[in-house]
Amino acid sequence: MTSSRLLTSLATTPEMADLFSDPSIVKTFFEFESALVRAQAMLGMIPASAADTISRAAAAEGFDAEALAREARFSASIAIPLVKALGARVAASDSAAARFVHWGATSQDALDTVMSLLISRAKPILERDHARLAKSLLALSDKHAGTVMLARTLLQPALPTTFGYKVAGWYGSVARSWRRLNESFREAVTLQFGGAAGTLAAYGRQGTALATALGKELKLPVAAAPWHAHRGRLAALVADCGIYAAAVGKIARDISLLMQQEVGELAEAGGGSSAMPNKRNPAGSVLALAAATRVPGLVAACLSAMVQEHERAAGAWQAEWPVVADTLQATGSALAAVAGAIEGLTVYPERMRANIAATHGVIFAEKVRMLVQPKLGREATERLLADAAREAQETARPFREVLRSRPEIISILSREQLDGVDRPEDYLGAAEEFRKKLLEE
Amino acid sequence: MTSSRLLTSLATTPEMADLFSDPSIVKTFFEFESALVRAQAMLGMIPASAADTISRAAAAEGFDAEALAREARFSASIAIPLVKALGARVAASDSAAARFVHWGATSQDALDTVMSLLISRAKPILERDHARLAKSLLALSDKHAGTVMLARTLLQPALPTTFGYKVAGWYGSVARSWRRLNESFREAVTLQFGGAAGTLAAYGRQGTALATALGKELKLPVAAAPWHAHRGRLAALVADCGIYAAAVGKIARDISLLMQQEVGELAEAGGGSSAMPNKRNPAGSVLALAAATRVPGLVAACLSAMVQEHERAAGAWQAEWPVVADTLQATGSALAAVAGAIEGLTVYPERMRANIAATHGVIFAEKVRMLVQPKLGREATERLLADAAREAQETARPFREVLRSRPEIISILSREQLDGVDRPEDYLGAAEEFRKKLLEE
Amino acid sequence: MTSSRLLTSLATTPEMADLFSDPSIVKTFFEFESALVRAQAMLGMIPASAADTISRAAAAEGFDAEALAREARFSASIAIPLVKALGARVAASDSAAARFVHWGATSQDALDTVMSLLISRAKPILERDHARLAKSLLALSDKHAGTVMLARTLLQPALPTTFGYKVAGWYGSVARSWRRLNESFREAVTLQFGGAAGTLAAYGRQGTALATALGKELKLPVAAAPWHAHRGRLAALVADCGIYAAAVGKIARDISLLMQQEVGELAEAGGGSSAMPNKRNPAGSVLALAAATRVPGLVAACLSAMVQEHERAAGAWQAEWPVVADTLQATGSALAAVAGAIEGLTVYPERMRANIAATHGVIFAEKVRMLVQPKLGREATERLLADAAREAQETARPFREVLRSRPEIISILSREQLDGVDRPEDYLGAAEEFRKKLLEE
Amino acid sequence: MTSSRLLTSLATTPEMADLFSDPSIVKTFFEFESALVRAQAMLGMIPASAADTISRAAAAEGFDAEALAREARFSASIAIPLVKALGARVAASDSAAARFVHWGATSQDALDTVMSLLISRAKPILERDHARLAKSLLALSDKHAGTVMLARTLLQPALPTTFGYKVAGWYGSVARSWRRLNESFREAVTLQFGGAAGTLAAYGRQGTALATALGKELKLPVAAAPWHAHRGRLAALVADCGIYAAAVGKIARDISLLMQQEVGELAEAGGGSSAMPNKRNPAGSVLALAAATRVPGLVAACLSAMVQEHERAAGAWQAEWPVVADTLQATGSALAAVAGAIEGLTVYPERMRANIAATHGVIFAEKVRMLVQPKLGREATERLLADAAREAQETARPFREVLRSRPEIISILSREQLDGVDRPEDYLGAAEEFRKKLLEE
Repeated sequence: MTSSRLLTSLATTPEMADLFSDPSIVKTFFEFESALVRAQAMLGMIPASAADTISRAAAAEGFDAEALAREARFSASIAIPLVKALGARVAASDSAAARFVHWGATSQDALDTVMSLLISRAKPILERDHARLAKSLLALSDKHAGTVMLARTLLQPALPTTFGYKVAGWYGSVARSWRRLNESFREAVTLQFGGAAGTLAAYGRQGTALATALGKELKLPVAAAPWHAHRGRLAALVADCGIYAAAVGKIARDISLLMQQEVGELAEAGGGSSAMPNKRNPAGSVLALAAATRVPGLVAACLSAMVQEHERAAGAWQAEWPVVADTLQATGSALAAVAGAIEGLTVYPERMRANIAATHGVIFAEKVRMLVQPKLGREATERLLADAAREAQETARPFREVLRSRPEIISILSREQLDGVDRPEDYLGAAEEFRKKLLEE
Repeated sequence: MTSSRLLTSLATTPEMADLFSDPSIVKTFFEFESALVRAQAMLGMIPASAADTISRAAAAEGFDAEALAREARFSASIAIPLVKALGARVAASDSAAARFVHWGATSQDALDTVMSLLISRAKPILERDHARLAKSLLALSDKHAGTVMLARTLLQPALPTTFGYKVAGWYGSVARSWRRLNESFREAVTLQFGGAAGTLAAYGRQGTALATALGKELKLPVAAAPWHAHRGRLAALVADCGIYAAAVGKIARDISLLMQQEVGELAEAGGGSSAMPNKRNPAGSVLALAAATRVPGLVAACLSAMVQEHERAAGAWQAEWPVVADTLQATGSALAAVAGAIEGLTVYPERMRANIAATHGVIFAEKVRMLVQPKLGREATERLLADAAREAQETARPFREVLRSRPEIISILSREQLDGVDRPEDYLGAAEEFRKKLLEE
Repeated sequence: MTSSRLLTSLATTPEMADLFSDPSIVKTFFEFESALVRAQAMLGMIPASAADTISRAAAAEGFDAEALAREARFSASIAIPLVKALGARVAASDSAAARFVHWGATSQDALDTVMSLLISRAKPILERDHARLAKSLLALSDKHAGTVMLARTLLQPALPTTFGYKVAGWYGSVARSWRRLNESFREAVTLQFGGAAGTLAAYGRQGTALATALGKELKLPVAAAPWHAHRGRLAALVADCGIYAAAVGKIARDISLLMQQEVGELAEAGGGSSAMPNKRNPAGSVLALAAATRVPGLVAACLSAMVQEHERAAGAWQAEWPVVADTLQATGSALAAVAGAIEGLTVYPERMRANIAATHGVIFAEKVRMLVQPKLGREATERLLADAAREAQETARPFREVLRSRPEIISILSREQLDGVDRPEDYLGAAEEFRKKLLEE
Repeated sequence: MTSSRLLTSLATTPEMADLFSDPSIVKTFFEFESALVRAQAMLGMIPASAADTISRAAAAEGFDAEALAREARFSASIAIPLVKALGARVAASDSAAARFVHWGATSQDALDTVMSLLISRAKPILERDHARLAKSLLALSDKHAGTVMLARTLLQPALPTTFGYKVAGWYGSVARSWRRLNESFREAVTLQFGGAAGTLAAYGRQGTALATALGKELKLPVAAAPWHAHRGRLAALVADCGIYAAAVGKIARDISLLMQQEVGELAEAGGGSSAMPNKRNPAGSVLALAAATRVPGLVAACLSAMVQEHERAAGAWQAEWPVVADTLQATGSALAAVAGAIEGLTVYPERMRANIAATHGVIFAEKVRMLVQPKLGREATERLLADAAREAQETARPFREVLRSRPEIISILSREQLDGVDRPEDYLGAAEEFRKKLLEE
């Protein structure tokens, strides 16, 4: 068998890759087929012995995934060769039982349910890593509630803020996104069972009873009706993965920017380079940003695929599997990477303070403006402050000192006001209040 | 002033186009500026007279949108020229008041809040049309609960179903999507108010009190914290529009396929052609499909734009306005078009029945298989049925009759079973049960 | 080793899947490393014996791809563990030689060159299948140059055309798209070799000589400069795959529509169903449409990934591998599927003619209009023709006969004109002329 | 009339917005109608007097765009109300002439040709700005051929490079992208003329002669055949805009990063802030990055729209106009913004050098490695260099000095070698050679 782990080594985690590997898919597919016959036997629709034989055959291993994949292309369905392979196994030992393999079901029932089951198994992985990330962010935010740093807008220094508040913003964003995603998982994980045309006609009056029994066997909720061509729940899951991955990507963007040598406010643990022994790369952030780059296109594909024809689509449905699996894997990869990055993060509060200082205090111009403009008027204030800011930057003198040289300023601001004008701690506004509210979200 | 309605004539509705037009944006922008100073006056932060003067100026009209748009490019912000224009108006009559225009706010506070307000005004438009669509679908489904038609998979005849169930599937899908979208509207419509760096530092200790007051003035909820660089709520709205538009697009795809002359099961009212007087085009479906084609890319753009730098992004934030507005307009266009199409839909039950008949009954092979396979085994059954189906199609004889000529069949099926084997009404399974459950969703 | 063929069984071909499998990637990666040391030895930069030893080790097999993939996440680079693994192999036998493994190169040099080589190997696969498709389309078009059928606009009957012309349209589109794609392959297949920062500084004055030698070893052209952060050539390849896949998708859409039972003008060979023995699914078209649904999102991801930071991106570059490989595989899958579908296509000219006849001739209204309107004026003509078309359709009488009952018509059209008014062969305009020009493209 | 410039003020340029405005579209639409009748008169197909009257009416102004847009939704075509409006104008003065308005043409002929003409007018705008950008980049690169700066990989310092080489990389990328785009413009600008079903049947034997004459009137090349449902040329234009915009976006990303206060190597002219008088924002880069964020989704939509049904699509075609126009406008906006940014760019060579110095020379570890590893072996070298790099960074001593304290180093490197080990000018490799080759591209 030929593995394919290298191509996607940065696009998934080993755990997620295993989940969508051939052995996992075969096993899950046969779980469906096995549960189906067990439920049918229970309802007296097929002989119990047939169900036993089929279940036993379904538990076996050793299917040739490459051959199955090759065959799938002829019918545009991987279910057909899988059912055939199972049927052949059963027939080898019990030709009577073989008659009841996949009894009355349609390919899509099996394939959609398989994907539902795989999704249900992806969820605890994401949930665990989300909990890790959330916990680390909470702790980090609390620890740095009083650590002042530059807020930056359009990549330029704006005003002081705290690192704790910044982290709380990250936390709030992933927490909100997780709530959505969690709900989407709940809705998307659903039995698919409608038979050839979504009516379960093959089972006569027993159709919905069988659906209920099958759902119970597989521990999957049963929707109001089959959803062969109504894919909104799946698309919602994919879209909410997209939102979550982007929220994680935003954290990664910030970390990678704050790790720039010239900024130097954060460092991830790890991240070596093949050619440069001196380098410390934002490896975790890179993985998350790679995911955030890819996922939007996957979401678009999934939405495009929602426009399906009639009771089963010709093309759009068949496009979904890799889209859904890639999205879950990319989200898992981003999440695991950033959870690790946050856990191992080193923070340099002194660099944060130094970067504020390197502005010479001109970032406090707004503070002065609020005090001065009511008296001087807008234009005079803007002119005065822009001029003072320029002088501070050009002469590398504290803005505070430059302001002290301006008669208009000293006529309005007291000595105490001027002395403290550039103390970051005094100009944080509601940062701590917002921080706490975000963490409570 | 130069209008731009033709380019997007099929991509929006006149109502939606008005909502995002220059007069609407200017008016909404100045609502923000006006509410800001009123709230500040109320809290004693600025003189009441200044607030009055500014509010009065903000209510005036006659701004030169093209000039403002031109100027916006220099600062990469439409807020700056708008604030300047307002300031100039105020200053013309009261230079003291002009000092308090946009007092302590940041461009993004105004622009994000403007978009929130526009979104809040788009919602009732969509809500009204969704209600129309839902109501029509409910009625249509009930009316055709017993109208049999072909279920089609991969664009091929599969089994019988009912048009009522098909419509209920459409209904269930848009109903579920609307629930999501409704919730996303609720979350996305939020005041933005954080000042230059999200801390409201300019207002000292009064920041959050001012936010509360401003929210009250504008009738907008206030989030836990400013969300300058955390765009998940907005992206969720856009994504859920995408899901809704796609659900509507699926209806349109089905209608356009059922309107094919060769199928002839449905007809939209209207839809003329410039060159061919005989044609009756699926005009409403076309509009919806056009929207469903465009929206996934808009969602992708919005997700890509979520990866924003620090406290205000350099590029990603500025990409959002057209994306959000185009998505809302496309969704509104699709919805209005399909609501109209459903309201004016003609259904041809006799063509539905004729199309079933044209299969010569071979679509009932599954029914026979369920009866025969337990006795004959899988392979023999498949061979027999494929052979009989081929004969029925080649000789244009009823499948029922062909089956009657097969000894294996008459040894298993009773005369009554064979007589009724191709009655669509007898092979609908749980269609009606599912239909009802979907309508209750 | 764990394979992953089932998830993507409809999204690739076995041949393409092998190309991007672990053994293929490992082999290609070591081809780079081997060529590098051979070129260096040739230029006297490292001992020939070291090059020999490394080349020999690089030809070995048995690397643990899953372990390598796991390790890749720590450095956000699959190259680092691969180089390490090679180094360990070499060191096991010759520690002196081990010093020269990956000598002076950077991870991206290896990884981008590996992708270039894989792309260069994907090309002949696509080229071969494109040639098959083009040849079949040419033959099919010639064979059906005179086969009349309905042209359909907005899924409604418009006018007669020929199947040969329709096929020529398909041909023209894929032929044009191939020309673009062919050129993009030519440009994208390029050595990457720039060293740690794109300057080849590690090699002193020998940098570009080494690049030339390495290009020669690998039979890869050398670009004007390294392109570590300039990805336009790669994005162009991906975009042109997108255009090609969509052109193929359009053929598939048409085939799947013409295969509808109610239309019945075409049939693919093959395409069985698991539940319905009577069905003949458009399996090839489905595979192509699935690809065409996914690829636009992949192209979007690749374009988003072009905005890379400085000399090597943090995230965007690392997003590319699965995007490029998935696009090539999806394109290959669509192409192979449609080439097969065309080769095995059955055409039903009599159904084509019958579908024309089923319009009762109202599709010839335009023809009449051109004769009548200059005399009757636009409005009178439109009224008259719409009225006659309606009567023909409602009474199922030939349009020709209905027209004969209209005095205004017989006053303008001769008996001969009326007799032949609905002969499809007489109203094909320049169809044959266009057909020939398209085939010459 | 209601303008819509504010919503898209950052997404287009005033010039581009005018091009796609209602007056421009109406004018261009009537250019088509006018050219059509002139060509028909020339070929004797309609009376010359009718052509004159229609042409005169088509030159008039004062159409109500909003009313036309409203009406377009009924037929899903803006051509139908436009033709009707023109017909009414002509009929008002000359009812005989009115018979020949839009004579034998189809809506799509007019609309596609209108878009072709608009595209042909967008091209010189882009071409002019590309020439500006290319010229500025060339000059900038030449001026800074010797200006050393940090090359940065994964946002970390890597090795020295030159700003001239960096700019040459930008130049090479936009130059290559422009060549593609230029070619795509050439292919996409094409007459559409096929009549109701792409056969020109309405014109009998004169169809292609009329196409030729019409192409001549409109100065548009005539393709081998109509392309109503074959949209590859248009999609290629859109995709190549996407590549160009992304290449421009990469420049903008780099500028915005180099403008960070902590980096301080570049500054755009302009870019004020509404709240912070001290700020200097990367306004031009922001506009380009906003475009680069949006365009990939537009390209995806255009590719999705290529899968069109039969001879005219139901939905996909109608989705194109806003996609094509938005893409051209976004590309034009990005290009104009970055051209302006480059023209007004301030470069700070001393900060570039200071940022190199701030690494303490550890970025030259690779250089030392190349000298030392052949003697010490890989592992010992890596350990030694990592250790020395750490010491240099922790003690803020020059890497060179730290190395001097290591016996293994001084036993291998000469004093001269060590003295010059951290001279950026001595470790630029082929930077200048590559720079020149890129500029020659």
